[in-house]
Amino acid sequence: MPAEAVLPGFNRMIGELPLVDQHAHGATGHDLSRAAFEELITEAHGPAPDWMTPFDSQLGHAILRHCAPVLGLDPFASPAEYLARRARWGAEEVNRLLLGAAGVAHFLLDTGYRAGEVLGPSGMARLTGAPVDEVVRLESVAEQVAASGVSAAGFAGRFAEALAERARTARALKSVAAYRHGLDLDPEPPSAAEVTEAAGRWLAAGGGLTDPVLLRHVIWAGLDLGLPLQFHTGFGDPDLDLRRADPLLLRGLIERTAPAGVPLVLLHCYPYHRNAGYLAHAYPHVFFDVGLSVHHTGARSVAVVAESLELAPFTKLMYSSDGWGPAELHFLGAELWRRAMARVLGAFVTDGDWSPAQAVRTATLIGRDNARRVYRLGGAA
Amino acid sequence: MPAEAVLPGFNRMIGELPLVDQHAHGATGHDLSRAAFEELITEAHGPAPDWMTPFDSQLGHAILRHCAPVLGLDPFASPAEYLARRARWGAEEVNRLLLGAAGVAHFLLDTGYRAGEVLGPSGMARLTGAPVDEVVRLESVAEQVAASGVSAAGFAGRFAEALAERARTARALKSVAAYRHGLDLDPEPPSAAEVTEAAGRWLAAGGGLTDPVLLRHVIWAGLDLGLPLQFHTGFGDPDLDLRRADPLLLRGLIERTAPAGVPLVLLHCYPYHRNAGYLAHAYPHVFFDVGLSVHHTGARSVAVVAESLELAPFTKLMYSSDGWGPAELHFLGAELWRRAMARVLGAFVTDGDWSPAQAVRTATLIGRDNARRVYRLGGAA
Amino acid sequence: MPAEAVLPGFNRMIGELPLVDQHAHGATGHDLSRAAFEELITEAHGPAPDWMTPFDSQLGHAILRHCAPVLGLDPFASPAEYLARRARWGAEEVNRLLLGAAGVAHFLLDTGYRAGEVLGPSGMARLTGAPVDEVVRLESVAEQVAASGVSAAGFAGRFAEALAERARTARALKSVAAYRHGLDLDPEPPSAAEVTEAAGRWLAAGGGLTDPVLLRHVIWAGLDLGLPLQFHTGFGDPDLDLRRADPLLLRGLIERTAPAGVPLVLLHCYPYHRNAGYLAHAYPHVFFDVGLSVHHTGARSVAVVAESLELAPFTKLMYSSDGWGPAELHFLGAELWRRAMARVLGAFVTDGDWSPAQAVRTATLIGRDNARRVYRLGGAA
Repeated sequence: MPAEAVLPGFNRMIGELPLVDQHAHGATGHDLSRAAFEELITEAHGPAPDWMTPFDSQLGHAILRHCAPVLGLDPFASPAEYLARRARWGAEEVNRLLLGAAGVAHFLLDTGYRAGEVLGPSGMARLTGAPVDEVVRLESVAEQVAASGVSAAGFAGRFAEALAERARTARALKSVAAYRHGLDLDPEPPSAAEVTEAAGRWLAAGGGLTDPVLLRHVIWAGLDLGLPLQFHTGFGDPDLDLRRADPLLLRGLIERTAPAGVPLVLLHCYPYHRNAGYLAHAYPHVFFDVGLSVHHTGARSVAVVAESLELAPFTKLMYSSDGWGPAELHFLGAELWRRAMARVLGAFVTDGDWSPAQAVRTATLIGRDNARRVYRLGGAA
Repeated sequence: MPAEAVLPGFNRMIGELPLVDQHAHGATGHDLSRAAFEELITEAHGPAPDWMTPFDSQLGHAILRHCAPVLGLDPFASPAEYLARRARWGAEEVNRLLLGAAGVAHFLLDTGYRAGEVLGPSGMARLTGAPVDEVVRLESVAEQVAASGVSAAGFAGRFAEALAERARTARALKSVAAYRHGLDLDPEPPSAAEVTEAAGRWLAAGGGLTDPVLLRHVIWAGLDLGLPLQFHTGFGDPDLDLRRADPLLLRGLIERTAPAGVPLVLLHCYPYHRNAGYLAHAYPHVFFDVGLSVHHTGARSVAVVAESLELAPFTKLMYSSDGWGPAELHFLGAELWRRAMARVLGAFVTDGDWSPAQAVRTATLIGRDNARRVYRLGGAA
Repeated sequence: MPAEAVLPGFNRMIGELPLVDQHAHGATGHDLSRAAFEELITEAHGPAPDWMTPFDSQLGHAILRHCAPVLGLDPFASPAEYLARRARWGAEEVNRLLLGAAGVAHFLLDTGYRAGEVLGPSGMARLTGAPVDEVVRLESVAEQVAASGVSAAGFAGRFAEALAERARTARALKSVAAYRHGLDLDPEPPSAAEVTEAAGRWLAAGGGLTDPVLLRHVIWAGLDLGLPLQFHTGFGDPDLDLRRADPLLLRGLIERTAPAGVPLVLLHCYPYHRNAGYLAHAYPHVFFDVGLSVHHTGARSVAVVAESLELAPFTKLMYSSDGWGPAELHFLGAELWRRAMARVLGAFVTDGDWSPAQAVRTATLIGRDNARRVYRLGGAA
């Protein structure tokens, strides 16, 4: 049987693989105006200039191509047609259609970002019928502790209690140090005295957690709990300095945490996904994904996915959407990932480089089984 | 109609699209010896070692493949045949043939680099029949002011006057701070006292403008005029430290200029074009191109163009050749860009990811309309 | 004749081209257990976790695909089948089969890394029937001098003598400063007094050579001998900080050595191979390869090889395997490089961008003739 003959079966298998979305946020539960929708499909801040629309982008084109049919339109509807149809269905039905079409069997939900504006774990579980577990954002817990009224000397203890309580039912922790300071942090844990002093400064000044001493403290406190720790790396909104979001900056921390072996999961990574692949190759406890990158690069996500399949062992890469807000992002993460994997691994097979069985096994590891193992989600792995 | 059936029409449309070359220099007006020609088709300094010729490169192969037919030879002529034919036609006719074949409807010409060796705006306009507008290089204006005899205290004022005068008819300004110091500049404007002090040091020492205080000053003085400001970023000749030419280093300046919104245009960018795409995504006033990279990567320019079409909104990318000297560079910039766009966007269409209309619209934005809007060139956009 | 019609001949030519492997190490002369074999096909340290096998990687898949047939198995044997067959043949025959299938006409062997565990030049020559010349690792020579008992004041002289002796028959020198410190070294040679002082500290402390003053000294002492100097750059095992292995960090040294023109050869380079291509373009005495990267990226090596063919003149790129230990690595370096070159250059031809003659010439330069010239190996170049 020629290699090409196995492709339809392989494509169907990838299309039907129940995914673990190892890093997502809630979908918006309410209807969105055109302006609000457009602001949510770009990482840029504020409304777009009047001479452009975010639909003129890979993500915009992917929405019109892939989401329009899910809402019952022909592919390549206009933005106006698409948004009119979206409004007619209403948020609840749009979410049900798009999240259903994503084919995700298990969500890990980061609940620490503008949680009041999107659905929480129970809302997402209700809509999708899939189990939804929580990823706890370290910085958000620290900010809640600070807001609750605590002394500088009491901060570390109260944070440890609050984090332990939140972590009881969570599957993972997450740090957004890349946003708050950059990943160029001293890799050593700070001393208790340093933490108290930094907490005193922070509690007096107020605002979000950006102090590098406290960022290090919450990371090390998280590591102590033993749950997998996710890191935002690579691009994101302009609060972040992309130069300081290169996952290679985590090398010191990776070296120091190798003996304990708590899984470290590098999220997104673009345009540093090859660097992430190297770290996943070199260190047994490092994992990564190219979530967020996939839906933002649209028709080019095939190249990004291909580049993620170079140095990294196939047991070290996972799937995520990083969807937040419009359920289009949760759906496109999955849909574009499936298309990219089908094309990239399919080409390995038809070029005679891989066997069909290797392609199936690799897709299953990355789409589902690696996350089941890392996060102890159960299910045959 | 299957997607493939629309490709011939799409390829013809791209082939015939009148381009705005938003950053070029003059073509050489005189005949060139083989040695002179070879020095002008590489960024390396000095004559090539005797065991190599710059024709053994992507650019060299592209000249023999694409320029030879414009001069009436078969594709893949030898370098000797090509240069003999070039000599027989003579510089005037070679320029007319190659610049004509580029299909450029409007040139923006940086006149600040070795202007005496190449044609100026009027010469280029005469040869091409297209409007040619000027891009004023900030550092060159400062050097002219210094050469004219000025006191340290008088420098800032005289520079402001000279720049305003030059800017009256220019469409854009440009900084080569990447060459002179690196883009790792303090993003704040210097104080008047700092400028005077730095000008004193410079005027005493002589030489080109490399002082970081004065580089910051001329950039901020340019920004005050409100014209789009182009920055050399990415590779170039070895005067430049490529690590210090990463456009991400401009983030501080980009953040500070976002409120005023003067367009910042990142030129060339390779191998940091994905970083440039991120900046163009994240900030409404940031634009970029992959000029220079396209002709130097030849048959591989399709990959570079594809990578430029990831994060960036399609309203933020422009076309340029960065041709300087041999008109082959002005022509190949356009020819290879057209071929790359036809292949990359054509594959999006045949793979079912984009509609033909999206491909046409995107090519037109990038090849012409974005530049018309950014530089207020007129013409339907 | 259509372009496609020439491809079979071109593929055959690439398949039969006798290569110069300009940077390899010895093959293991003894049988390997599964655990030992698996540790040698990854850059990670120590045994793999029990939930993974290094065979689940591009390199693992490539072994099962390409090496299995060399040992008489069908492609895509299981790891167990492959290792059983390997054990049945025995190390001597496995080496003979795989090294023979590599088609290498001349090896340059770095003998400075765990030399006791692998075959030396004479063993490799006996197995392959090809000439094997030595690459002398500067840091290893320095460590041998230190171990032999030397005073701080006598170190520089004794090192110079030892190096000159070793260099008498060697074809090249090599530095692993990327591992020992990072390439972010002061590009100037240290003074004699600095060397003596640093040698004193080192001799008192013991251990491997990691002192930046001494690393600079051995590099400059090597440059004085005039032999081509290879540098490890890019990824490797986790002893190395990948951020500090970017070949762009060598710019200062490259600038200072340009007048003398001793060839500097950047090895491996991934994921910085485009940076290496720029340096090879900009400086006549800089060369590079993508060895090590090719076998580790397996089915994706076609992309890596393609990216290496952008800015670099085709006279500046060479072939190497960087094989160490299992002869699979020496074979796959060659086999995957041939496949990648055939596909990349073949596509240039069928797309109409290159002539068949250009493809043949370029493959021959990179696979053989550039190394013959740089290392003065003799043979028609």
